[in-house]
Amino acid sequence: MGSMAHPYFLRVAYDGTDFHGWQIQSVLPTVQGALGLALGAFDPAAPPPQGTGRTDAGVHAEAQGVLVRATRVWDPHRLLTALNAHLPATIRVMTAEVAPEGFLPRRDAVAKRYRYRLGEGPAAFPLDRAFRWHLFGKAPLDREAMAEAAAHWVGTHDFSSFRNRECVAEGPVRTLHALRLEAHPRGLDLVFEGNAFLMHQVRIMSGTLVQVGQGKLRAAQALEILVARRREAAGETAPPQGLCMERVWYAAKWGIGERSPWPE
Amino acid sequence: MGSMAHPYFLRVAYDGTDFHGWQIQSVLPTVQGALGLALGAFDPAAPPPQGTGRTDAGVHAEAQGVLVRATRVWDPHRLLTALNAHLPATIRVMTAEVAPEGFLPRRDAVAKRYRYRLGEGPAAFPLDRAFRWHLFGKAPLDREAMAEAAAHWVGTHDFSSFRNRECVAEGPVRTLHALRLEAHPRGLDLVFEGNAFLMHQVRIMSGTLVQVGQGKLRAAQALEILVARRREAAGETAPPQGLCMERVWYAAKWGIGERSPWPE
Repeated sequence: MGSMAHPYFLRVAYDGTDFHGWQIQSVLPTVQGALGLALGAFDPAAPPPQGTGRTDAGVHAEAQGVLVRATRVWDPHRLLTALNAHLPATIRVMTAEVAPEGFLPRRDAVAKRYRYRLGEGPAAFPLDRAFRWHLFGKAPLDREAMAEAAAHWVGTHDFSSFRNRECVAEGPVRTLHALRLEAHPRGLDLVFEGNAFLMHQVRIMSGTLVQVGQGKLRAAQALEILVARRREAAGETAPPQGLCMERVWYAAKWGIGERSPWPE
Repeated sequence: MGSMAHPYFLRVAYDGTDFHGWQIQSVLPTVQGALGLALGAFDPAAPPPQGTGRTDAGVHAEAQGVLVRATRVWDPHRLLTALNAHLPATIRVMTAEVAPEGFLPRRDAVAKRYRYRLGEGPAAFPLDRAFRWHLFGKAPLDREAMAEAAAHWVGTHDFSSFRNRECVAEGPVRTLHALRLEAHPRGLDLVFEGNAFLMHQVRIMSGTLVQVGQGKLRAAQALEILVARRREAAGETAPPQGLCMERVWYAAKWGIGERSPWPE
């Protein structure tokens, strides 16, 4: 690599339904694997694309930030077109630009937004069945209690209670900048913005908030769960299909996309 | 039927991708056929469900209005649950209620809303690829020209120019109450409200509007096309996947759903 590599930054959207997550695996289809195959179709010497965050199996993305290192110079729009021509319709490079030398998407991300989509009502709406976790509860979710619970988690905390046991991150402390409940005609969206997230953090928080909304946990217990710093204290892990990696902000010095609304 | 039938009104949503339209056919899977099979699983003597409008192969619905005549009395919520238990996930009964005696969905509909979804940009967004017609034009659609063209069609007109040759409707005169352009983050929605629509009318109008938006037709030609009353005068038929039957209003006397915002 080094001076021979030509770096490009891509925003990649995918319907994660049929993929075993972002990260490349030996046999199972993954998004990183599919991108690598597409790139390799016309640039076989290029190393595997690097993503910003490892989404789980079945999780979607509107804008996974990806760095590719091509072995030759491309017009970014032509690179986008060439990659899309080799990708399945479930993965699309939405934007492409020249990346600054030295930029690393995972290291240089300063904030991310994830959206967890909840569905309510007697039937799961067929047109977004792949992108929303449908709850068949008889009563609507108690939004007030959920908002009260969510407020306990915003800030810089040890999030060990919301961390999958297989998480390999070094420490459990992260900053959750915001956790908003947004109304949707057929349910409720949970919108998480933070500097970074532990493995399954958004899904465990979403599952726990649903239990609060169903009255199975009290809002005040959200604080008890946080301070317990044990996974067993929190609620269930919400299923992957409701989750979408929606946005990534990078350190301003790289000049990629908009500036983060949150302090770096 | 007669006094032995117990009528229920359903709002049915479907992802039309895998269906050969609404109307029952001998072999090919259709939405009406699937609903009939689901009903027949527990009420084999019930006649086929009746819809409000015949959607084409590949067209979606948020709320197709359907009448079923069961041979016994049901709690509407239990009927909904029973039908959904026998339907594929691509079709869902979203609401169910007792229908008034004598109500016929097709005859008693007084207005409908269809939405045609257009996508723009260099790549088709994977998360709604099945529900939007993606245009790869280099320039964005000229919304001003499209709005000007659309305005020529609103009102009560002979819509023969926007009528598929196989249309079996008796006359070509319909009232188009409104044709709105609604912004979407990745494209443009065309929203049609009218008392009724001819076969392919919305798709031919959408295809023609796209050609106006691409500068292939001038906005003033929209009026010439209308008055020509010949299918050849209009533009291409937009593909089915962008179209969705979004809402139906029925005559107020039946007390089903909200009153139509348009005169009956």
